Amino acid sequence: MNHPAAPASIMQTPSRGVLPPALLDALRLVFGERLSTAEAVRAHHGRDESAFDPRLPDAVVFAETTDEISATLRLCAEHAVPVIPFGAGSSLEGHILAVNGGVSMDLSRMNHILSIDPEDLIATVEPGVTRKQLNDALRETGLFFPIDPGADASLGGMCATRASGTNAVRYGTMRENVLGLKVALADGRVIRTGTRARKSSAGYDLTRLFVGSEGTLGVITEATVRLHPLPEAVSAASCSFPSMVDAVNAVIQVIQLGVPIARVEFVDALAARSLNMHSHLSLKESPQLFFEFHGTEAGVEEQVRTVSEIAADHHGEGFEWATRPEDRSRLWNARHNAYFAMLQLKPGSRAMTTDVCVPISRLAECIAGTEQDLASSPLPCPIVGHVGDGNFHVAILVDPNQPAEYEEAERLNHLIVRRALALGGTCTGEHGIGLHKIGFMHEEHGEDALDVMRAIKRALDPANLLNPGKMFSLERERP
Amino acid sequence: MNHPAAPASIMQTPSRGVLPPALLDALRLVFGERLSTAEAVRAHHGRDESAFDPRLPDAVVFAETTDEISATLRLCAEHAVPVIPFGAGSSLEGHILAVNGGVSMDLSRMNHILSIDPEDLIATVEPGVTRKQLNDALRETGLFFPIDPGADASLGGMCATRASGTNAVRYGTMRENVLGLKVALADGRVIRTGTRARKSSAGYDLTRLFVGSEGTLGVITEATVRLHPLPEAVSAASCSFPSMVDAVNAVIQVIQLGVPIARVEFVDALAARSLNMHSHLSLKESPQLFFEFHGTEAGVEEQVRTVSEIAADHHGEGFEWATRPEDRSRLWNARHNAYFAMLQLKPGSRAMTTDVCVPISRLAECIAGTEQDLASSPLPCPIVGHVGDGNFHVAILVDPNQPAEYEEAERLNHLIVRRALALGGTCTGEHGIGLHKIGFMHEEHGEDALDVMRAIKRALDPANLLNPGKMFSLERERP
Repeated sequence: MNHPAAPASIMQTPSRGVLPPALLDALRLVFGERLSTAEAVRAHHGRDESAFDPRLPDAVVFAETTDEISATLRLCAEHAVPVIPFGAGSSLEGHILAVNGGVSMDLSRMNHILSIDPEDLIATVEPGVTRKQLNDALRETGLFFPIDPGADASLGGMCATRASGTNAVRYGTMRENVLGLKVALADGRVIRTGTRARKSSAGYDLTRLFVGSEGTLGVITEATVRLHPLPEAVSAASCSFPSMVDAVNAVIQVIQLGVPIARVEFVDALAARSLNMHSHLSLKESPQLFFEFHGTEAGVEEQVRTVSEIAADHHGEGFEWATRPEDRSRLWNARHNAYFAMLQLKPGSRAMTTDVCVPISRLAECIAGTEQDLASSPLPCPIVGHVGDGNFHVAILVDPNQPAEYEEAERLNHLIVRRALALGGTCTGEHGIGLHKIGFMHEEHGEDALDVMRAIKRALDPANLLNPGKMFSLERERP
Repeated sequence: MNHPAAPASIMQTPSRGVLPPALLDALRLVFGERLSTAEAVRAHHGRDESAFDPRLPDAVVFAETTDEISATLRLCAEHAVPVIPFGAGSSLEGHILAVNGGVSMDLSRMNHILSIDPEDLIATVEPGVTRKQLNDALRETGLFFPIDPGADASLGGMCATRASGTNAVRYGTMRENVLGLKVALADGRVIRTGTRARKSSAGYDLTRLFVGSEGTLGVITEATVRLHPLPEAVSAASCSFPSMVDAVNAVIQVIQLGVPIARVEFVDALAARSLNMHSHLSLKESPQLFFEFHGTEAGVEEQVRTVSEIAADHHGEGFEWATRPEDRSRLWNARHNAYFAMLQLKPGSRAMTTDVCVPISRLAECIAGTEQDLASSPLPCPIVGHVGDGNFHVAILVDPNQPAEYEEAERLNHLIVRRALALGGTCTGEHGIGLHKIGFMHEEHGEDALDVMRAIKRALDPANLLNPGKMFSLERERP
């Protein structure tokens, strides 16, 4: 199906079907067996975790070096063929769909950790390294990489979408945790952004420009990321609340007091039920907060005391401890698997996932309004959220064979996003725009700010070959 | 004098001397008495705290609204006349010198705090608000704005230079603490970047593009910044070390252990002497660290215990406490006044201040090499540094009437920057490029990354009217 949120002009641009034979020959010289035009391979690279129908690339190359990426970009530029970088395929917004055909550049074989520098608390990785892989490699160092979007995404993809997740409230997002990048530009030239120093005022912040650019300005071929010391002590807890408003107000107070909480996650009654079913927990099926505390032994004890008092002040019940690693893991594994747990609420369904983020003072209002919208809908819509950041997700569960359900999901999505924007928020806290949020860019940024983005896009990718059709329309849509 | 580090092509572009009469008339209609062409006013706006000789603008306008800024940009674009935003004039790198003449846009009257939102921990300010003014206004809220570059700079200027300072080690720099901006573009259009939400993945990070752009891409007319809860307890200490290497190694260990230290500042023996003279302290005249600890009472006690043990392990002596606010203030006021204290080491001197920042693992090596270079120089060169970030400053004291001393200062500056770049660092941690570091941009970024910056500059300011001649040469300098 064509997705109503994506402008028709983008979705209906036909794929070219086949690549120019001269390009195919040239790519084959570079990649040999690592170039594929097989239907199954193309199909795998034409879809992601979103509810969009697949849009297949014309070919897939499996890059192993920056030079190969550079050569591909140069060749595709010569033939005016699109290039779509592909990491782990875990996007929720249609980022990697080949809406204009072209070459999908699979980076999963560029999965080498190039260096780990414990003294400087940094690591340099190829873009196909996943966050779990990096953390496994860090095991002996006393350090960890904190950004955790749930899926075992590739770090290149996490850079490209400006990912964050459960512990951004303490450690920040990819924006704060990428020190520098190596990037191949549209014409194949390769640049480095940033240095190994923690801060710099030397020129435009190209690192932050490419972080979040969704493959539309260049291909990230290497990333230097910040690591953090593993806390001496970690403790986790869950707590149920009579209402969402109580839970959110507790979180606001925790943040305002400056408690350096590592994670604070909201789970609504329906999501709690899905976790109980999928992960065999025995959560009360009411609004819940999951907490994680990092610090010294004494510091964690102090945080826990403060937070449990705040929770009690807001009618929190059954504040339950998990200091043993296995209990903590059980709780957080359940939270990590929430996406798949929620899908089980409606067997055979796919999820359209919203991702709004609002100022925390407006969060309760935003979720309450959202709950009212959802109450009148026939679709199951569990809610989970990184509430310390004001970010929450509604998983709108649709039967992929029922177009009417997609329409209903889009209707809900529009209501949710419009409310968040009206409250001073953003249409996407961490998933990115991809295809699905293009229609909200005007409302969020205004046409003049979009023009600045367009000017940058044209300056760096004049032929519009880098992941074309994503993020925004290149034409000014309104006066 | 013409400054050797700035390319001759930039410095020798003549000022036009007078503005087109039609422009002057049009500006007078907008600004009335708030437009000045008086020599004294232009002279005040043609210099900063750097060692550069003044370069006067042709006129100065004192803007009071975003509309006036927008109108000025539109009019100057019509007449192809440069515009140079002017905040507090505290730049150390020649940022505000009117090297091509034009209109200096004084923003100091745009000094209104537009809103303070304690629940969301954010404030929105006009660009002329200074950091002290903001903190005074926050006094009753239990919140503070942490970025502290020493000078009472304007927040617009701090955005423009990506400033940081003494407590970036804990709270980050302007990069991390600006949530959104209002920006007037070269053609007078006004955009907003960012939202009031703490994070977003919606499109290119225009906020981070303008932060650090030194007035070359647009004029910041409003900034929304992050606030932080005032810590329950604050404690400060100083400690002397037998050598710089011991002091730096102590800092590395503090950082690696993840102690959430709020400030850790290095002061060398000569700088310590200047502080003793200027602020009537009785510091031992040897390498020193100044610490500040923020947290709960128990948390601060724990940090202090840990850090004093680490200091002792690295031969620290006389770890001295300042828990009383007046003692803390005395120590930190002295540190804040270090720039002026150091100038007193050579009465009548001006300082050429270096600002390199390196990965912390290379910091001791970098400072040691620097000390060797300085030892053979006749100029007094005290060193202070935000060592938790790997950033340090050498204040090279020159007699403004002795051109040979400027040359010697430039020679030292080149040695210091080249070494920092070779160690994986940056030529500027927090002061910006301005005029003085232009010559190092090629070496730090490479010509292809500079081309990306140039492409962005051309896309947003095609006629090169926004603070022209700063940051980088628009022409590719080398093949």
